[in-house]
Amino acid sequence: MARDKKKKPQRPKALPPKGFRDYFGPQVAQRNAMLAQITEVYHRYGFDALESPAVETVEALGKFLPDVDRPNEGVFAWQDEDDAWMALRYDLTAPLARVYAQFRNDLPTPYRRYAMGPVWRNEKPGPGRYRQFYQCDADTVGAPSVAADAEICAMLSDTLEAVGIERGDYLVRVNNRKVLNGVLETMGVTDAGQQANVLRTIDKFDKVGEAGVRELLGKGRLDASGAYIDGVGLSVDQAEPVIAFLTSKALNAAKTLENLRYAVGGSQVGLDGVNELDTIAHLMDAQGYGSDRIDIDPSVVRGLGYYTGPVYEAELTFDILDEKGRKRQFGSVAGGGRYDDLVKRFTGQSVPATGVSIGVDRLLAALREKGRITSVVSGPVVVTVMDRDRMGDYQAMVAELRNAGIRAEVYLGNPKNFGNQLKYADKRESPVAVIEGGDEKERGVVQIKDLALGARLSSEIETAEEWKKQPAQMEIKRGDLVAEVRKMIARAQEMG
Amino acid sequence: MARDKKKKPQRPKALPPKGFRDYFGPQVAQRNAMLAQITEVYHRYGFDALESPAVETVEALGKFLPDVDRPNEGVFAWQDEDDAWMALRYDLTAPLARVYAQFRNDLPTPYRRYAMGPVWRNEKPGPGRYRQFYQCDADTVGAPSVAADAEICAMLSDTLEAVGIERGDYLVRVNNRKVLNGVLETMGVTDAGQQANVLRTIDKFDKVGEAGVRELLGKGRLDASGAYIDGVGLSVDQAEPVIAFLTSKALNAAKTLENLRYAVGGSQVGLDGVNELDTIAHLMDAQGYGSDRIDIDPSVVRGLGYYTGPVYEAELTFDILDEKGRKRQFGSVAGGGRYDDLVKRFTGQSVPATGVSIGVDRLLAALREKGRITSVVSGPVVVTVMDRDRMGDYQAMVAELRNAGIRAEVYLGNPKNFGNQLKYADKRESPVAVIEGGDEKERGVVQIKDLALGARLSSEIETAEEWKKQPAQMEIKRGDLVAEVRKMIARAQEMG
Repeated sequence: MARDKKKKPQRPKALPPKGFRDYFGPQVAQRNAMLAQITEVYHRYGFDALESPAVETVEALGKFLPDVDRPNEGVFAWQDEDDAWMALRYDLTAPLARVYAQFRNDLPTPYRRYAMGPVWRNEKPGPGRYRQFYQCDADTVGAPSVAADAEICAMLSDTLEAVGIERGDYLVRVNNRKVLNGVLETMGVTDAGQQANVLRTIDKFDKVGEAGVRELLGKGRLDASGAYIDGVGLSVDQAEPVIAFLTSKALNAAKTLENLRYAVGGSQVGLDGVNELDTIAHLMDAQGYGSDRIDIDPSVVRGLGYYTGPVYEAELTFDILDEKGRKRQFGSVAGGGRYDDLVKRFTGQSVPATGVSIGVDRLLAALREKGRITSVVSGPVVVTVMDRDRMGDYQAMVAELRNAGIRAEVYLGNPKNFGNQLKYADKRESPVAVIEGGDEKERGVVQIKDLALGARLSSEIETAEEWKKQPAQMEIKRGDLVAEVRKMIARAQEMG
Repeated sequence: MARDKKKKPQRPKALPPKGFRDYFGPQVAQRNAMLAQITEVYHRYGFDALESPAVETVEALGKFLPDVDRPNEGVFAWQDEDDAWMALRYDLTAPLARVYAQFRNDLPTPYRRYAMGPVWRNEKPGPGRYRQFYQCDADTVGAPSVAADAEICAMLSDTLEAVGIERGDYLVRVNNRKVLNGVLETMGVTDAGQQANVLRTIDKFDKVGEAGVRELLGKGRLDASGAYIDGVGLSVDQAEPVIAFLTSKALNAAKTLENLRYAVGGSQVGLDGVNELDTIAHLMDAQGYGSDRIDIDPSVVRGLGYYTGPVYEAELTFDILDEKGRKRQFGSVAGGGRYDDLVKRFTGQSVPATGVSIGVDRLLAALREKGRITSVVSGPVVVTVMDRDRMGDYQAMVAELRNAGIRAEVYLGNPKNFGNQLKYADKRESPVAVIEGGDEKERGVVQIKDLALGARLSSEIETAEEWKKQPAQMEIKRGDLVAEVRKMIARAQEMG
């Protein structure tokens, strides 16, 4: 037995690596259609495409851990023949930094660029967590003005509507890291470690709410699992400005900004931040974007730790049912903000940048959820093969159909079993089958069959003879093939 | 000094890894436009998209060298946390084999699929040789009939015309490996090593011609560098059938096939091959593809060693000037053929397949050469900033223009130096600049400037005042902004 096992050829497993997946016809077409819609908006806003390679030097990505001679485990990395480390990009921002540093003398300033493509993360895969996924970014490099941030918020709003998210079903919410810095200054939290603790705490605002954040800023809190989470140790008074900041959202931007001015106290950086938000609100207003589309909302905390100025996030506001049947909001599909020193690592010069990243897969999922994916793929007309010696006749038919712009194919499997040809057409979601036996050929006619109409019967039909008797079938003149097939497809689309 | 050097921060180089490159705006847009044209044809032929991940297991790629515990050096490979080898795909066929083996019960049979995307080669980069490049493949899996090969040839012809290669500027040439096998049989060359030597020799037919192949099949040959290349050692008589095969191309397909029948002598596999070519010629004829588009040509030798049946290659037949100013044909832009046992490694079952790969970058280069790339990117209208406190007004203008479908942007750099704004517009290849100072604002007008017309003067103009005096500038009512800008763009396009 052991010997037999050894003799058996070792066959490779037909599987992708863990955490990777394949996309088939309609999925590819739907994503490409969405990317084309997004491209159209980005292009209209003056953004130019950039496609950098999937592979960068680890040095350029900046993904070496301190004091360790291997790159960060979060990236897929390897050494080339010269022992230099290369890695797959883990986002589209690090390559932008490298490209801008490399070509800064040739590129316009400001440089508006968009990029779309896969990124790779060397992380433990899980349900819904993949190691290759699409990102779709737009960034403006070299524009210090918040008008650049406002522009990206407007573009994000236009983009969501362009791909089919209706007004009212989304909201672009804007916050500002500088306001939080002002709040920390006013609180007297100057120690970097304590600042980081406060940032970590407000990151939980979405999850634990105002009362939870109060507890976590103070003594601590029992979490849902019963574990006790230590607090930051601030006094109730000291915590007050952060709470005021997080809960400052009011019915209109003017009132929200007033609340923020109160929260930052006398801090100059805080007031700068509030004024930036004021400017953004004003610019949005000037372009006709109401607070139903783009809103100043200091409860947006995602990314506040990373960004240095305005932060923005697009949320879908409609409810979906989660896996347990409970209603919840769909949530975030895009986020971004202003980050300084994009290229400083390379050049030593500070260059401000602001940008957004759209989660393409999440956005597609949202559109499917809302039934707003219009299928961009339709099955082909299938020309069946009744007489294998007359393949030329059948190929001539598909050529005619294709030349008229109709998606069509001839059956290329073994034609012996006609039922298999129909099962194939079924699997292809074919709208129309074309049948021309010797008898039809002689009389100068062909049979065309509305497969949508005949679908429920098809499982019972085994031969071409039976098939011909079905009501969904028509005999037409061979010369009318293109016109009649076109009519039948149009009718099927109207019905369907 | 040494100390100072040490203190200086080690900055990473702003360069991609060797052999990788970036694509900017128009390059990305042109390639995407071409891929969309190709997709349209493939889709019309009933082919479905497949997008597999960039990463596969090395096991699935089949890229382990025998008796070596590292993968083939031609791939970029690394070990994951479980010590399993992963690699970047080096083509789109190996992933197809894995996908078809994995999903064969769910996919239609035959399965027509197309795939477009980058592939990676871990090879020494050189001028024009990159380690990441695009491929664009279409394959039919599970169709043993040569009708599948004929279909791909027709599709290739349609595709070349769809992207802008005119009829007469290309030729799809078809050969068949089985004919060569028949020739070898007739010659009595049965030893695998000697067969391989003959194959290697005829691979040089394109380079050394008939006389050179005769020498190489016989005693050997002095090559251009003066080195002596050993021959295969066949007698003159023995070599004759191969020469007959390679030179059998005649004025029409019927005569070519007659020559081939002579060359294969009594070999059954050879006759099968000739009959397959006969069928392909017949099917092409039935669909209206003349020999000016698709031709039987036994001098096509590229790929004959790899494929098992029909082999096809698309060549561009127009002349270009090479780097030394000599005329030469542009050459091959696509090739493919029939290969058996696509998935046998995985499943043990033979599954026939046939497919083509288009060299996207070469095809784009050819279209540029012929001046047939219509620019799909046009520069944006640039709204200049005369008064930085009125950014809202300028943003409102770009919003109006964008909402009317006009590509537009506001200048987001430092607005102090107006000359810089115009230089920026110039760099952006902007067709129109919009100018609204305080005076214009008061009078309810704006200035619009035809930048194409004013281009040659722009280098001498430093201030907005000077600019206003140029003939290419118009004062219009603020309310007519969209209409007048549209007119000016249209005029510029007519002129340009």
